[in-house]
Amino acid sequence: MDLKKFIDDVKDFPEKGINFKDISPLLANGEALNYTVNKMAEFAKDADVIVGPDARGFLFGTPVASILKKPFVMVRKAKKLPGDVIRKEYHYEYSSNVLEMQKNRIFPGQKVVVIDDILATGGTTKAIIDLIESQGAIVQRVIFLLELKDLKGLDKYHGIEVISLVKM
Amino acid sequence: MDLKKFIDDVKDFPEKGINFKDISPLLANGEALNYTVNKMAEFAKDADVIVGPDARGFLFGTPVASILKKPFVMVRKAKKLPGDVIRKEYHYEYSSNVLEMQKNRIFPGQKVVVIDDILATGGTTKAIIDLIESQGAIVQRVIFLLELKDLKGLDKYHGIEVISLVKM
Repeated sequence: MDLKKFIDDVKDFPEKGINFKDISPLLANGEALNYTVNKMAEFAKDADVIVGPDARGFLFGTPVASILKKPFVMVRKAKKLPGDVIRKEYHYEYSSNVLEMQKNRIFPGQKVVVIDDILATGGTTKAIIDLIESQGAIVQRVIFLLELKDLKGLDKYHGIEVISLVKM
Repeated sequence: MDLKKFIDDVKDFPEKGINFKDISPLLANGEALNYTVNKMAEFAKDADVIVGPDARGFLFGTPVASILKKPFVMVRKAKKLPGDVIRKEYHYEYSSNVLEMQKNRIFPGQKVVVIDDILATGGTTKAIIDLIESQGAIVQRVIFLLELKDLKGLDKYHGIEVISLVKM
């Protein structure tokens, strides 16, 4: 299935000069959504745990975990997750952000697959990889619906396999 | 399957006096997650469209839509969705919030099922129902993983069927 036609280009969103990729048409097509998550599940079938970030990583992470009957672990922005958490701060050009994951959801030696919607600069994914590796688990693979080639987000994942269903 | 044991009570989160229900253990159990989304899908099987709110509604909405091969439409906080949107402001006791949905994702006469994780006061869900009905579509049913009975969120849904897999 050609998934490209289900991803819209929206110019100047959220601000002037940014060309936003909108995955809403893919979600709004039941066949395309089903195809996407089953394709991702093929690439995640030997994982012990699936990890996905708030919010759009949730859209693809739980369907894949459910198909494979594997654990899904959330990565969220600061102060959203209760209990003991592990934190990772990461920096943009002009600002920074904090991601958190609950402790004792993934364990040393486990094989983890990270799932998210879009690979752009890769900053979020790099922080997620650090969170997982700091717990002694192994990031086996990162799966994206869409990879934006111009932004060269891939440079941040030396040694970790990256699968993107669509490249634009 | 008894899903109650996969929902943790966390006292004083996010602030003192609030008893937070944490669904992370359910997500972290592949069998329980699979059971949950398939159970929700049974109750959504005659819908035309599935709608779920950012962020935790995404966790259950796309798996259900994918199983049923039906469209999934996101409801998000303000300024997250590109293109033409419909907005709904709703009020808490001390503040307010805005929810948005893209135009032309649901159509007059369509049967819509709304999926979210927890029914507490029901304010968010009431706003989502208003967004859907303002487009001439019919909210057929609202499905929650968990209903907090003490908060009486159900009072807001006169005439709309509410299904909760767990009541606490």
